[in-house]
Amino acid sequence: MSSTPAQSAIEAFDAVDLIKAKRDGRVLSTPEIDWLISRYANGYVGDEQMAAMAMAIFLNGMERTEIRDMTLAMIASGERMNFDGLGKVTVDKHSTGGVGDKITLPLMPLVASFGVAVPQLSGRGLGHTGGTLDKLEAIPGWRAELSNEEMFTLLQEIGGVICAAGAGLAPADKKLYALRDITGTVECIPLIASSIMSKKIAEGTDSLVLDVKFGSGSFMGDIERSRALAETMVALGEDAGVRTSALLTNMNVPLGLAIGNANEVRESVEVLAGGGPADVVELTVELAREMLRLAGQPDADVEGALKNGAAMDVWRRWVSAQDGDPDGALPVARETHQVRADRDGVLVRQEALPFGIAAWRLGAGRARKQDPVIHSAGIDLAAKPGDAVKKGDVLFTLSAEDAARFPRALEALEGAYEIGDAGSEILTGGPLIAGRVGAE
Amino acid sequence: MSSTPAQSAIEAFDAVDLIKAKRDGRVLSTPEIDWLISRYANGYVGDEQMAAMAMAIFLNGMERTEIRDMTLAMIASGERMNFDGLGKVTVDKHSTGGVGDKITLPLMPLVASFGVAVPQLSGRGLGHTGGTLDKLEAIPGWRAELSNEEMFTLLQEIGGVICAAGAGLAPADKKLYALRDITGTVECIPLIASSIMSKKIAEGTDSLVLDVKFGSGSFMGDIERSRALAETMVALGEDAGVRTSALLTNMNVPLGLAIGNANEVRESVEVLAGGGPADVVELTVELAREMLRLAGQPDADVEGALKNGAAMDVWRRWVSAQDGDPDGALPVARETHQVRADRDGVLVRQEALPFGIAAWRLGAGRARKQDPVIHSAGIDLAAKPGDAVKKGDVLFTLSAEDAARFPRALEALEGAYEIGDAGSEILTGGPLIAGRVGAE
Repeated sequence: MSSTPAQSAIEAFDAVDLIKAKRDGRVLSTPEIDWLISRYANGYVGDEQMAAMAMAIFLNGMERTEIRDMTLAMIASGERMNFDGLGKVTVDKHSTGGVGDKITLPLMPLVASFGVAVPQLSGRGLGHTGGTLDKLEAIPGWRAELSNEEMFTLLQEIGGVICAAGAGLAPADKKLYALRDITGTVECIPLIASSIMSKKIAEGTDSLVLDVKFGSGSFMGDIERSRALAETMVALGEDAGVRTSALLTNMNVPLGLAIGNANEVRESVEVLAGGGPADVVELTVELAREMLRLAGQPDADVEGALKNGAAMDVWRRWVSAQDGDPDGALPVARETHQVRADRDGVLVRQEALPFGIAAWRLGAGRARKQDPVIHSAGIDLAAKPGDAVKKGDVLFTLSAEDAARFPRALEALEGAYEIGDAGSEILTGGPLIAGRVGAE
Repeated sequence: MSSTPAQSAIEAFDAVDLIKAKRDGRVLSTPEIDWLISRYANGYVGDEQMAAMAMAIFLNGMERTEIRDMTLAMIASGERMNFDGLGKVTVDKHSTGGVGDKITLPLMPLVASFGVAVPQLSGRGLGHTGGTLDKLEAIPGWRAELSNEEMFTLLQEIGGVICAAGAGLAPADKKLYALRDITGTVECIPLIASSIMSKKIAEGTDSLVLDVKFGSGSFMGDIERSRALAETMVALGEDAGVRTSALLTNMNVPLGLAIGNANEVRESVEVLAGGGPADVVELTVELAREMLRLAGQPDADVEGALKNGAAMDVWRRWVSAQDGDPDGALPVARETHQVRADRDGVLVRQEALPFGIAAWRLGAGRARKQDPVIHSAGIDLAAKPGDAVKKGDVLFTLSAEDAARFPRALEALEGAYEIGDAGSEILTGGPLIAGRVGAE
């Protein structure tokens, strides 16, 4: 009843009819989904209508066919990139996001050092999960915005880029992503899968490795939901001709020792120098192996490229090519606050979500898109679960530009970690890499 | 994550948290619902957020306590009327809407003729269900907009008003009602019940009779859903100190012979003159009895007041008081189109919904709020289910200002009626009045 007879004469479908169909559990057809997404992109279908539809999808689900149609419709709403002219195999990685997840920084140069091209279009952080571009902007002069031509040149000459996705890529997804954030419709497999995969397929990569997080610091919670999300995305990628696989990785504990922006860059450079925390190295190496396997180099000596400086060399050339100074001083916070062990024992628990929220409250993340990120703010962990600690040892250091930030950050951390007796069970919620999804 | 720290410091709740709570099946508390509705009324909670919430309510339901809180919060969003100074008992009727439902027109003067006051705040039609104010505006000069002072004077001097609800009454409901219409969230008991009852309780009536429709021409469909809606509304009324009861009435077949605006006024005047179709008379009389019973006059001679001119007298004085001419000529359409029986037999089926849609397409209703209604357009039925017809007899007449309207109206009527052999079962989906809900 909401469309006028004049509109009905022009439009093939009515938004209210489609919302009711999904509300009542019906499967939407390909033409219905094409119409919905194209009309949402051009504003004919309103945000309030799409919000009702998103909630109906959240609660009633979508079939695989609908998720595929949704993904393709979002791709069709914008431009599609093509790297065929490069003469190189392209391979990309996407993480569903977590606390301390700086893996893209060492991973891109590492993989690119094997002569494949890594077109890493990245995002900014919202809430407790950080954004790759925010982290890199801690490097003096480094620039996230590249033209398509610059991107092509960097892929050709250096083998990798990390840059902001242009506004032309899947614009319907950009609109829907922002809407989901304010309407309580984020944690939904059909909407997450179509959002991620529409951007990645539109980006035009040959192959794609997904790092799908599970655990308290991830969107999805338990591993079975993460596996379902991974399977959905791998199927979408394969259907669209992108070689796709996924690792299911643990986000119950922060990744590495640094949570923030500048400190995550520092840790990434340590990994590229052949050092760094064991978990960051392990995940970087395993994702690199998976990417190179899809790119046709299953036997690449990935660890060697970290040890012999090959990856570091790509990093330094690449940072310079995006106007950053690889030797520039990273920002350091004016204020620090150290938290120490109140007893001898072993650190048995360190939960990702509260540490992510605390870093966010220190200024490392943003609450609204338009807020700035404070690059010097964050948390440096001095101990990880399983480490022995003595009373008075530093457990972690908070950094902020304003000491007034500390109380609310510390509030978030209450009960977020625990020191137990020697020999206690270490509560990490499983191994770092707990599964793999995708064709052999 | 969508609210800034600054907002969190001021606001008791966050819209996204409340949407997620209802999405996940949690019962919302009184302070949460108060906050949600007041912030939606003032625009802090956006339409897209309320649309997601409405869909979550549609799919996950609401407890009685939540529906009561929602109703009270919508009342609190605006002014509340008070007729205590009248020195008369006030009693109102509300219908959930149907095809050919002009009952308010004869009912108000009939009940008012017994010395009680009937403050009938009414609405306009949207879609296939007509609106009382639209029908009355077919009377030359008649005016729907009254000040509160005029309303009080008419209730005092004549005993009744039928007028538009002021913008100050439950403004949060007005906003939500418009939103539900475009987001596929209309047919939902918690939202319907709180919408109707917030307006009626804010209106300040002592007693209220609900005409809750069931059947294909109603919002609710089957009688059990209608009974559930009636029970919810009666409980809301009683909780708020309004004596409330409900009749469950049949909307599988159009009510009376006239569907439109001017023709429905004509039929109403026939009823007030002691004539009119049997079903319209029966429902008018039963609703009047129920209203007068709640108002303390269980033995009122309702049928007598139709026969002896008492109700007609109130009607004429009341139409004049709202600037209408009770003897004025009602508009007649330029074009008519008659549909005749193609065989001898008995009319066994006549479905309300397609006749409602056909009248709407002829111009009797509006597709959008801002569209005008064509008062002369509509349908006049010459036979009702159970009537014997001969080949060539007129079954019904379509009226419109433009003959180009007829084809789409006739399209809606395909298969909407059926002539069977004498002795066939008459398919009306049950008796006109199928049940009653409320305290004895």
